[in-house]
Amino acid sequence: MRAAILSIGDELALGQVVDTNAPWLAARLAECGVFSPLHIVVADDQAAIVRLLRLAAESAELVIATGGLGPTDDDLTRPALAEFLGAELVEDPESVVHIEQFFQARGRQMPQRNRLQALHPRGTQVLHNPVGTAPGIAMRLGTTHLFCVPGVPSEMRDLYTRHIEPFLQSVVKPQAVVLTRTVHTYGAGESTIADLLGDLMDRRRNPLVGTTASEAVISVRIRSESSSRTEAARRLDDTEEQVRSRLGTLIFGAGDQTLQEAVGRLLIDARATLATAESCTGGLLGKRITDVAGSSRYYIGGFVTYSNEAKVRDLGIAPALIEQHGAVSEPVARAMAEGAMQRCGADCALSITGIAGPEGGTPDKPVGTVWIALARRNGQTQARLHRIPESRAVVRDRATKAALNMLRLEMIKSGP
Amino acid sequence: MRAAILSIGDELALGQVVDTNAPWLAARLAECGVFSPLHIVVADDQAAIVRLLRLAAESAELVIATGGLGPTDDDLTRPALAEFLGAELVEDPESVVHIEQFFQARGRQMPQRNRLQALHPRGTQVLHNPVGTAPGIAMRLGTTHLFCVPGVPSEMRDLYTRHIEPFLQSVVKPQAVVLTRTVHTYGAGESTIADLLGDLMDRRRNPLVGTTASEAVISVRIRSESSSRTEAARRLDDTEEQVRSRLGTLIFGAGDQTLQEAVGRLLIDARATLATAESCTGGLLGKRITDVAGSSRYYIGGFVTYSNEAKVRDLGIAPALIEQHGAVSEPVARAMAEGAMQRCGADCALSITGIAGPEGGTPDKPVGTVWIALARRNGQTQARLHRIPESRAVVRDRATKAALNMLRLEMIKSGP
Repeated sequence: MRAAILSIGDELALGQVVDTNAPWLAARLAECGVFSPLHIVVADDQAAIVRLLRLAAESAELVIATGGLGPTDDDLTRPALAEFLGAELVEDPESVVHIEQFFQARGRQMPQRNRLQALHPRGTQVLHNPVGTAPGIAMRLGTTHLFCVPGVPSEMRDLYTRHIEPFLQSVVKPQAVVLTRTVHTYGAGESTIADLLGDLMDRRRNPLVGTTASEAVISVRIRSESSSRTEAARRLDDTEEQVRSRLGTLIFGAGDQTLQEAVGRLLIDARATLATAESCTGGLLGKRITDVAGSSRYYIGGFVTYSNEAKVRDLGIAPALIEQHGAVSEPVARAMAEGAMQRCGADCALSITGIAGPEGGTPDKPVGTVWIALARRNGQTQARLHRIPESRAVVRDRATKAALNMLRLEMIKSGP
Repeated sequence: MRAAILSIGDELALGQVVDTNAPWLAARLAECGVFSPLHIVVADDQAAIVRLLRLAAESAELVIATGGLGPTDDDLTRPALAEFLGAELVEDPESVVHIEQFFQARGRQMPQRNRLQALHPRGTQVLHNPVGTAPGIAMRLGTTHLFCVPGVPSEMRDLYTRHIEPFLQSVVKPQAVVLTRTVHTYGAGESTIADLLGDLMDRRRNPLVGTTASEAVISVRIRSESSSRTEAARRLDDTEEQVRSRLGTLIFGAGDQTLQEAVGRLLIDARATLATAESCTGGLLGKRITDVAGSSRYYIGGFVTYSNEAKVRDLGIAPALIEQHGAVSEPVARAMAEGAMQRCGADCALSITGIAGPEGGTPDKPVGTVWIALARRNGQTQARLHRIPESRAVVRDRATKAALNMLRLEMIKSGP
């Protein structure tokens, strides 16, 4: 089965927004054995949408259109679809109720124009959208299956997972079973990972092993193919074991697992509590730790000591220490971690102090200079200097990841 | 003039790489008065490329194709172009010399297959590429101008700037100048914004006004078209003024400006300082505030009081208050904001306490219940209840945006 993906919206056509829906869909479709040789971005222009719906339906057995299902006049997918099908738009009573309830749950009344979102061409199927007000629309045209879903990425993904993927799994009979697994590493670059994996990365190998870098996390993808599911699974397990044995503690997790989830797991296992003290990251470390549902089991809290006065007042750091060494220094990083740990009565604490830029660098301490410290109730405080000559956002991202990884490695080695 | 953009490559079709070339080109073309209502991603398949080159050439007066000009077997743009034009491929001697020199300069000999990159269909023009080995190809077909450039973004951008943009500016007399502007709003849904904009959103209007929703920020795009730049600019200004007059303080910024930047600007103008106290957002509010370079001018710091003990210890909240009302309550939100303000000696402070989920909800206080308070040195503390029945990530996102917006509106109304 082949798919065509149609992304609808002036903001995409004008280049104001990068379309991430089409590549996301293409990657997910590939997992179901569906290749998407054609993606189209089209402006909010009803005639053009109709023309390209026709082209897409003629080119592929599966068409997924995203966007243009909002409640405003420039949302033209519904009328374009009606024109394409030669069918009138009718209201879906269930959708009206759902949209009304959506607003009620937020303490608001449904604006009249949102009622438009309950319209669909007669004879098409309405796809319930629990996360937004725009239902999806599904239909069959000869041998082609056509789905229209909202362009808001979270809603598109939900509707795909809820309605389209199960449909594909029921109709597509793959030639071979393809099983994939991904493990994630932190602390080494992509070349180092490739060197460690060595012959496992041979392109003719099955399972095939590849790497992807994303924001300093290097992920190792394993793709196992066989006519037998058992055989594909056995090979996958075998290769994963080899990957794990070569990469050791560089691996922090697999699948959807994040660095902060891995750290949380280790803290729960050790029944240990954590506190934080952040300067240049301004709360991002705490944010990451509390991304994890249930993080209140181990995270007590933290201090965003963005100013020097806050460092002195909230963490009990001697003003002389800051004067002598500067706020971005090993002694201050250590004192911040120890101060946060003591103040919170935590088993361990992480601190970050650095120069995120773009201003504030000096020849001695250029932008990207970051000190990270880890204090432990039952161990010595350790501190490490990182040099991250990047943009403000990247410095902050890498600093928080480095801090989480420092704690992870220490927990593996010797507990909190 | 209207353009169609064709992006060629399996890695795009498979969703392994997000196509950033098309949006970049669309935005740059818009600056020259060229609108790009159609972007196409197509796999490495010669028949499909030929078919879509034809569609693109029939749909637009300008076609830009990127990718498929490399030296390997899956680079099919040259043969597809030759098939499309019915012209044979011939070698460009200057390009051969350039490619040889390119390798020589890197101390390597030209691999024989790179010589393929010097081929172009007879009768077409070769575009010199100083930054890579693949020259571009240009031609005219009736009233349509067609350009093929490499897919490597740096090479594509260089060739566009070097060859295509000057061509558009000098040879092609644009029928119309297109100017765009975007303003961003927070605090109302897309339907409400559409209702307020009313007739301004008429699809036949020039300037054209449209809306886009992204993570609860509703952006209003204005697109002004005229044969005269002065006239297009005058109309753009006029429509922006009408948009601003109808949306008032719902608008927080324009262009690239974020909510946190708008808040920062207001704090700087008022010479006011800010502190934060966060529970369920775990540091995300502080992170957002310090996304802004130079935020140390107004942000003193904050407290991530994730546990009740932290609220008592760091913000001086009476344990009885928490016992009586619960940590997620109006009195506790108020006390958190006041505690943070006093503790930091700040002019104002924001607090957030809520249930981010997925666990922890009760019938009285379901997941998504969030209290936000704003304390001010020179004014009364105010608090507001938000109900955000969404995922953990969305609850935290919306809660921090609502807090920033609360401060923004208060600063506009009466200063810090």
